[in-house]
Amino acid sequence: MLANVRHLLFGSPLSTAEEAHERLTKVKALAVFSGDALSSVVYAPEEILLMLVVAGSAALGLSLPIAVAIVVLLVIVATSYYQTIHGYPSGGGAYIVAYDNLGVWPGLIAAAALLTDYVLTAAVSVTSGVAAVTSVFPGLLPYRVTLSLLAIAFITWANLRGVRESGTLFAIPTYSFVFIFLILIVVGLVRLVTGTFSPVPAQTIPVVGQGTKALTLFLILRAFAAGCTALTGVEAISNGIPAFQKPEAKNAGKTLIAMAALLAVMFLGITFLARSLSVVPVEDETVVSQIGRQVFGHGLLYLVLQVITMLFLMLAAQTAFADFPRLSAILARDRYLPRQLTNLGDRLVFANGIIALALLASGLIIIFGGRTHRLIPLFAVGAFLTFTLSQAGMVRHWHNEGGRGWPWKAAVNGLGAVTTGIALLIIAVSKFIQGAWIIILLVPAFVWVFRTFEEHYATVAEQLSLDGLSPEKWEDLTSRKRYKVVVPVSGIHRGTLAALRFARSLSKDVTAVVVDVEPQVTARVREKWPAWGHDVPLVVLESPYRSTIGPLLAYLDEVDRREPERGLAVVVLPEFVTAKWWQDLLHNQTARFIKGVLIYRRGQTGKDRLIIDVPYHLQR
Amino acid sequence: MLANVRHLLFGSPLSTAEEAHERLTKVKALAVFSGDALSSVVYAPEEILLMLVVAGSAALGLSLPIAVAIVVLLVIVATSYYQTIHGYPSGGGAYIVAYDNLGVWPGLIAAAALLTDYVLTAAVSVTSGVAAVTSVFPGLLPYRVTLSLLAIAFITWANLRGVRESGTLFAIPTYSFVFIFLILIVVGLVRLVTGTFSPVPAQTIPVVGQGTKALTLFLILRAFAAGCTALTGVEAISNGIPAFQKPEAKNAGKTLIAMAALLAVMFLGITFLARSLSVVPVEDETVVSQIGRQVFGHGLLYLVLQVITMLFLMLAAQTAFADFPRLSAILARDRYLPRQLTNLGDRLVFANGIIALALLASGLIIIFGGRTHRLIPLFAVGAFLTFTLSQAGMVRHWHNEGGRGWPWKAAVNGLGAVTTGIALLIIAVSKFIQGAWIIILLVPAFVWVFRTFEEHYATVAEQLSLDGLSPEKWEDLTSRKRYKVVVPVSGIHRGTLAALRFARSLSKDVTAVVVDVEPQVTARVREKWPAWGHDVPLVVLESPYRSTIGPLLAYLDEVDRREPERGLAVVVLPEFVTAKWWQDLLHNQTARFIKGVLIYRRGQTGKDRLIIDVPYHLQR
Repeated sequence: MLANVRHLLFGSPLSTAEEAHERLTKVKALAVFSGDALSSVVYAPEEILLMLVVAGSAALGLSLPIAVAIVVLLVIVATSYYQTIHGYPSGGGAYIVAYDNLGVWPGLIAAAALLTDYVLTAAVSVTSGVAAVTSVFPGLLPYRVTLSLLAIAFITWANLRGVRESGTLFAIPTYSFVFIFLILIVVGLVRLVTGTFSPVPAQTIPVVGQGTKALTLFLILRAFAAGCTALTGVEAISNGIPAFQKPEAKNAGKTLIAMAALLAVMFLGITFLARSLSVVPVEDETVVSQIGRQVFGHGLLYLVLQVITMLFLMLAAQTAFADFPRLSAILARDRYLPRQLTNLGDRLVFANGIIALALLASGLIIIFGGRTHRLIPLFAVGAFLTFTLSQAGMVRHWHNEGGRGWPWKAAVNGLGAVTTGIALLIIAVSKFIQGAWIIILLVPAFVWVFRTFEEHYATVAEQLSLDGLSPEKWEDLTSRKRYKVVVPVSGIHRGTLAALRFARSLSKDVTAVVVDVEPQVTARVREKWPAWGHDVPLVVLESPYRSTIGPLLAYLDEVDRREPERGLAVVVLPEFVTAKWWQDLLHNQTARFIKGVLIYRRGQTGKDRLIIDVPYHLQR
Repeated sequence: MLANVRHLLFGSPLSTAEEAHERLTKVKALAVFSGDALSSVVYAPEEILLMLVVAGSAALGLSLPIAVAIVVLLVIVATSYYQTIHGYPSGGGAYIVAYDNLGVWPGLIAAAALLTDYVLTAAVSVTSGVAAVTSVFPGLLPYRVTLSLLAIAFITWANLRGVRESGTLFAIPTYSFVFIFLILIVVGLVRLVTGTFSPVPAQTIPVVGQGTKALTLFLILRAFAAGCTALTGVEAISNGIPAFQKPEAKNAGKTLIAMAALLAVMFLGITFLARSLSVVPVEDETVVSQIGRQVFGHGLLYLVLQVITMLFLMLAAQTAFADFPRLSAILARDRYLPRQLTNLGDRLVFANGIIALALLASGLIIIFGGRTHRLIPLFAVGAFLTFTLSQAGMVRHWHNEGGRGWPWKAAVNGLGAVTTGIALLIIAVSKFIQGAWIIILLVPAFVWVFRTFEEHYATVAEQLSLDGLSPEKWEDLTSRKRYKVVVPVSGIHRGTLAALRFARSLSKDVTAVVVDVEPQVTARVREKWPAWGHDVPLVVLESPYRSTIGPLLAYLDEVDRREPERGLAVVVLPEFVTAKWWQDLLHNQTARFIKGVLIYRRGQTGKDRLIIDVPYHLQR
């Protein structure tokens, strides 16, 4: 029944053989891998304006030079990754590059940074997608957290069913987004030049009143840091090289260039338009929506812009849902995360990783009230930490590899490492109080957890290893007289008889034990024993405190001490199993409780005790 | 460690021998049993006023005649219970009386009504105790739910430690309460007669504005119904007769009369004072607090009144905490509730019943926002249903018993049954919409649950019964060749070896099974098998959908079908147990999962499968 519901919801199971890999053309690959990067043009310009407006609307003029600086940074980062693609044609995620070239610790730091970054990508994309909708329908504003959680739930469901990263599926929203944003920019510029703008609706800007702070360097750096979120996701292509058509590295490189160019044009275009149209960031409407209204008017085109923006941002969240489970499965395979994350589910997806990401992102959305600009300070730290480590790793890589012109290649990645490192510092310091500290604490915490898990798995492997053992002759070990068997009974019924019978088949040394909690019950057992107990002796244990487990454990210890060379006493537990699950709640579950306590109680001798369940199924 | 914390919190275990029963003098017994009844003088007059005020403050004048009517009802009910005490000198709770005389169904209805009533007693007492405090410190009003829950938590804790129903302990707050209320009434009357009241602070009564409704008969009946809550708890003494000193019934009867007299005097006194002082019920201050301020002024005496009221109301909640677990244990012994409720805990208390009551009362408090007057409409239904059934049962009792003057005795209880029955109808109808419907639905639901549980226990007993069996000779059954044994392995390690060794000691027909989920693992097992597997054959099961349990179940079915006369295959499960609990989370728990599925999966044949756990303890 449960299985049927599951199949209805998530589709019927897929066999391992059905795992297929599509090879992507450049055009489709751009659609699949650029969601995270391109989507930032929706919120990054707004974040710059939000930082500057604190110093009055005059300060907004600085947004353009800051955007230019960020585009310069983008060119450097894209060039660096272009080299990474050619250096790691089989896929050069930051974890692998840092691990390979810089060692375990930098690798784990990069992994931790990546994981936090994916969680934030999911959260930020969804909340700004919802913001695109609430800009059109302000009545929905109070429900933004609910809407965001619904969106997460939908994406999670789709991923648990298994989203093929199908190029065709991704191409439609991606290219619609690129197309409508380019139209927005072009029409906006044309109308600016031709001066056909209706007078800007006098924005009664509540924010101007706030403009009391001086325009300090610190403020400018904060605006720069906020804009740096535009670069998150640039690394995506370098992770996905194997999905490209041959020659993979070359095609991936070209796609990276195209993506960076699109990102630069759209980012600058939106920032310029916002500036020229005197858009001021407000709480209830996004900057893109304000620009859209001014350029397109209130008509259909504006609505289309917002809908496409929303859909594309969901796609950007999907990037995180594809990458987080994949990376956590790799980390789990390397023993740094629980191995359940490597389980391929029914539908060939890493279901546990998907659910973990959904829970983490939902948590963030709830904590930060579904507000994008509150999440942003946490966002770029992870991305730039990843950039720096991965670029520094590439420097080492070229050095180790040597080959023609390696100093040049190393220099390019070195420049990337240094500039992203400086940006990282700026972000960490200028955003520290607003939330960057959370990430700065989380990353080492994650790394510590990784190491703890790895240590645990290593000691388990060591303890289970057969090293030092040699195969023994079982014949010597299987004398049936060896076992001392104890059968705890709580009454004489069909379940007890089954257990006693099995116990006797196991050994001649069987003792039945009843703990005297309810005197009437004990009396009844004693009375019936001669008829039903055969040659098995019955021991009655006193229990002044009405506990079943205490006297039983004491008795077992006593039996264990007798002839210790015969090992610990085997416990045979009669357990009746009810016909329906809820009926379980009506019974004391003493058998289950005893089993639980016994399994976790290691003998003082370090030996292990056998626990044998003899279930007796009730039919009704 | 955990045990230490528990002993610190709840005290060290008490042995069964330490269970002691104090015999109470009449004075102490009054203190122990009257909490529920007497405490209602705090809220019942207020509830009458609250109903009347809807028709304008002029209607408040009706409160006195209504109170007189309720006192008449009280006299009838007390007389009826006086007879019950002599008819059931060993304790005549409504459940027992109705069950004995009217049959199973009325007994169960009475039990359901009593249980709901106890939950409401706990909730109402606590919320009105908190209201006594917030009347003095209105700043605490927003925290009334929290304060009520804290009070519940405290009472729960005290009961889990084990509250001796010590007469001395109860006497202090009870007699302080009686004493200060009598002083309040006397001083109030004296000041009224001597005319020394300062002019009543002109209450700017917001309620007068509401006085738009006509004073209908329905409204008067609602006020009467609200006041009937004063009678809840009158039955308490008849439940507790065995706790009295000899002659028990006689002493209990006298105590009942004293309690009824006190209740009548205090109830009439408070209602009269409220009327004479023109007290109007308001949201933020209780009626008693308003009277107290006018009579005593703002000084220390007023504060003492409120504190004692609060403490005594906590004691009234304690009545529910003593009776609910006791009644549910009786019901559980009769198989109408889960038998866990009969477990006497470490401290000789019915811990499960205490916790159940605490959860139910807390739930009510949260749902109804900690407001007493919202809970009241639910309250009296259960109590009056109990009264009616118990009195009707007594009529039957006298009839069956015969004896001298039985028609007279039957007539007294008959009058009780009829009047409380009419009151019940009034309460149910006039309070239906405000919440009485909840109880009217809950009681039959409870009864249905009782019957379902009882049926389940009966079928279990029947299925486990040895009827029709005769003791067999075990020697015929214990041939060690009989078992077909299957050992699922997930790798070759020390844990697997232990399981294989035990399996071989059990039978010569052992098969090891590996499910091919991860090809590398399967390959490794295959490779090592010749050295470590001895004569045990290894079977590799395909698993196209990467499930472990599916192929394993199919294989077991196949083995079961072979030579069915040899029974179902025994499953021996290697399971390694981690050293620390959190480490469990890092493993797939396949063994535990298989165990769970197998235990609940009844063989098609109706036979039962043995499941044997071979634990291997990790030391680190």
